[in-house]
Amino acid sequence: MVPHLVTALTGPINELEQRVLDSMPAIERWFRLEWMEHTPPFYSSVDLRNAGFKLAPVDTNLYPAGWHNLRPEMLPLAVQAAMAAIEKICPEARNLLLIPENHSSNTFYLSSVAQLRRIFHMAGLNVRIGSIDPAIKKTTTMILPDGQSVTLEPVLRGKRRLGVKDFDPCTILLNTDLRAGVPGILEDLHEQYLLPPLHAGWTTRRRSKHFKCYEEVAKRMGKLLGVDPWLINPMFEKCAGVQLAQGFDTECMHTRIDALLAKIRRKYKEYGIKEKPFVVVKADNGPHDFGILTVHDVKELPALSEKMQRQTRNLSAAEQTHDILIQEGVLTQERMNDAVAEPVVYMMDRYVVGGFYRIHAHRGTDENLNTPGASYVPLAFEQSTHLPQPGIKPGASAPNRFYMYGVVARLAMLAASYELEATDPDVEVYD
Amino acid sequence: MVPHLVTALTGPINELEQRVLDSMPAIERWFRLEWMEHTPPFYSSVDLRNAGFKLAPVDTNLYPAGWHNLRPEMLPLAVQAAMAAIEKICPEARNLLLIPENHSSNTFYLSSVAQLRRIFHMAGLNVRIGSIDPAIKKTTTMILPDGQSVTLEPVLRGKRRLGVKDFDPCTILLNTDLRAGVPGILEDLHEQYLLPPLHAGWTTRRRSKHFKCYEEVAKRMGKLLGVDPWLINPMFEKCAGVQLAQGFDTECMHTRIDALLAKIRRKYKEYGIKEKPFVVVKADNGPHDFGILTVHDVKELPALSEKMQRQTRNLSAAEQTHDILIQEGVLTQERMNDAVAEPVVYMMDRYVVGGFYRIHAHRGTDENLNTPGASYVPLAFEQSTHLPQPGIKPGASAPNRFYMYGVVARLAMLAASYELEATDPDVEVYD
Repeated sequence: MVPHLVTALTGPINELEQRVLDSMPAIERWFRLEWMEHTPPFYSSVDLRNAGFKLAPVDTNLYPAGWHNLRPEMLPLAVQAAMAAIEKICPEARNLLLIPENHSSNTFYLSSVAQLRRIFHMAGLNVRIGSIDPAIKKTTTMILPDGQSVTLEPVLRGKRRLGVKDFDPCTILLNTDLRAGVPGILEDLHEQYLLPPLHAGWTTRRRSKHFKCYEEVAKRMGKLLGVDPWLINPMFEKCAGVQLAQGFDTECMHTRIDALLAKIRRKYKEYGIKEKPFVVVKADNGPHDFGILTVHDVKELPALSEKMQRQTRNLSAAEQTHDILIQEGVLTQERMNDAVAEPVVYMMDRYVVGGFYRIHAHRGTDENLNTPGASYVPLAFEQSTHLPQPGIKPGASAPNRFYMYGVVARLAMLAASYELEATDPDVEVYD
Repeated sequence: MVPHLVTALTGPINELEQRVLDSMPAIERWFRLEWMEHTPPFYSSVDLRNAGFKLAPVDTNLYPAGWHNLRPEMLPLAVQAAMAAIEKICPEARNLLLIPENHSSNTFYLSSVAQLRRIFHMAGLNVRIGSIDPAIKKTTTMILPDGQSVTLEPVLRGKRRLGVKDFDPCTILLNTDLRAGVPGILEDLHEQYLLPPLHAGWTTRRRSKHFKCYEEVAKRMGKLLGVDPWLINPMFEKCAGVQLAQGFDTECMHTRIDALLAKIRRKYKEYGIKEKPFVVVKADNGPHDFGILTVHDVKELPALSEKMQRQTRNLSAAEQTHDILIQEGVLTQERMNDAVAEPVVYMMDRYVVGGFYRIHAHRGTDENLNTPGASYVPLAFEQSTHLPQPGIKPGASAPNRFYMYGVVARLAMLAASYELEATDPDVEVYD
């Protein structure tokens, strides 16, 4: 099943699809040459929004969960990609220690951990799950709704190595985004491969840095395709050090939201788009603690600001100070029956290994669907993104739409690769 | 659908399956380390025979046809593997020229060519099909039964490069086994990647060399698994320069067949196997021009010899002189209803990308099923070989059986890699 697009089967998105298909060999060659120079993130997932007139990534996750939502038929692709990744990074590996999020008794999340364990086991590694949660003091087995079990073992830290009882891994795979900072237990592990590296965590990462890198790769892909890069790029602004308890309505926020809305309005006019421009306001780093807000007009700021003040007044000064990303809002025009849908693409090493749609019956087309606690239905991509079918009418072929999604998701992955290079503390920075 | 084994669910093959599963991480690591030192053939297919008490490769093809027999669901695996192969060998490639067998209007073969074209196109290359058949003087389009078309273009040879009209490929993929010798048109193409290299053709290859290399890797894998390597290795002998028009019944043939039958008899006795030992007699190189003969006793030789003399008396001295491989016959104990089945595993680069069963209603368990012109039904492997499921009773799990088939097929691929290194005319040989 593939959600349908509510937009007509003409217009920019279909022209984009056609150009992507026509340029397939050039696109693949371009990626191949990029991967000669740059290292892909070990794994990643990218949230996309298809507005019917543009298709853009809106968030890139370097510690993806949700692996259990992929179709079982796609599992061999993930296994093969995991084999390729392991072979490149640590061919001599025998043992892999998987470190999940702390405090997680969420069985959806644990099902994803179980799926990752399965993928790396099938790729030929002994896998154990080591918890860095101080609350996990002894081996703890959780039973999942499907009857599978996940066993969390407390990690054991030696002087230079991390492991669990009777298990000394050469590779440690983090599936936690380190939102609370890098714990000391993960530092100075110079004898083991730590994947992804610590600077992929939210202590270092900034969404604005990511989307700056993305803008660069989108420009180059736009040139290759002969299209306006705006068709695949969400514009953004940022405001540093906003004190949420004093509200949102700072001069920076006011000015930049207004400026970004004006830029979007000009683009909409250029393309004859009748929709109302909007921006989304989110934290520049970390999880979406204060939510993701939709703003259509700076006039809405005072009310939003007041709400934010109430929400955050009990937080410490550090907790309520945030760098803020103001991102062009990208509508989603995909629907499954009446519910709004947005695609999420999963990658392992340089390969797209699957994806699913987030489907949400109670959200608007201009709202974030990945809200904490929101109930959404994952709809696994019906086919691989590896199966483009040239010659089929644009907009009419699910494999072609998936291929286009895979291309844009890989652009975001490439941007993450640039981002990680630029923020790597172990290399000299030239810029 | 998976053929069932007529053997009971106990005995050597299930013990082997159990050991293969238990050793999965060690096996995968072993392959990873091997691929650090050795280059896998670009693509390959391996014919296996599962006797219920042993599982062995009986032929390894370095120019596989039959790609159209794989399940469509497996196509993304082949595409991903093709991407990996291209990236490693020639990342800057744009154009690939595929060279099929000459004289082929066989629509089964052309469907396989169309499938290869699709795989490499989806992997991001411009693909054209160039014929080196002198009979193809102009562009010729063949329509396949499913409505697809295959366009063969006559190759154009420049001083240093090969192409077709308005198409200069940097990579040339051979899908012809060069049984008639290496044509001059393929020589001295030092500016282009020629895959597989010319010495993978039957002018250079010898089955006895391949199975000698296989014996070596089987010994090492046997040690890793803690099993007798015979359980995965077909023993063999060879006789050089047999003049078929003078018959088969030479002293060499007589002695070696008798010796090999005796060795098999001892092995059968050791394992309490009640079957009748047999050997198969085939050419040491090239296609099976004189067929594949089954011999249970040297007493059969005079009659077979007479038949061979009649068949070959009109051939030239060169044509009727053959090096002969005498291979331990491996029964197949797999059945689909009443028909005999044998698995064929397909690989691209180091990855198993699928497979199928040859199913033949009119052949015995000790006969070759890949007979020219024989009608067999291909039954695509139901699942990927990437999905082993530990903990399931040996012999009861199709994914586990496929995983074991994938391991043995990869051993044969590794043997082919050793073989190609040893026969590479461009490197110094140290042995």
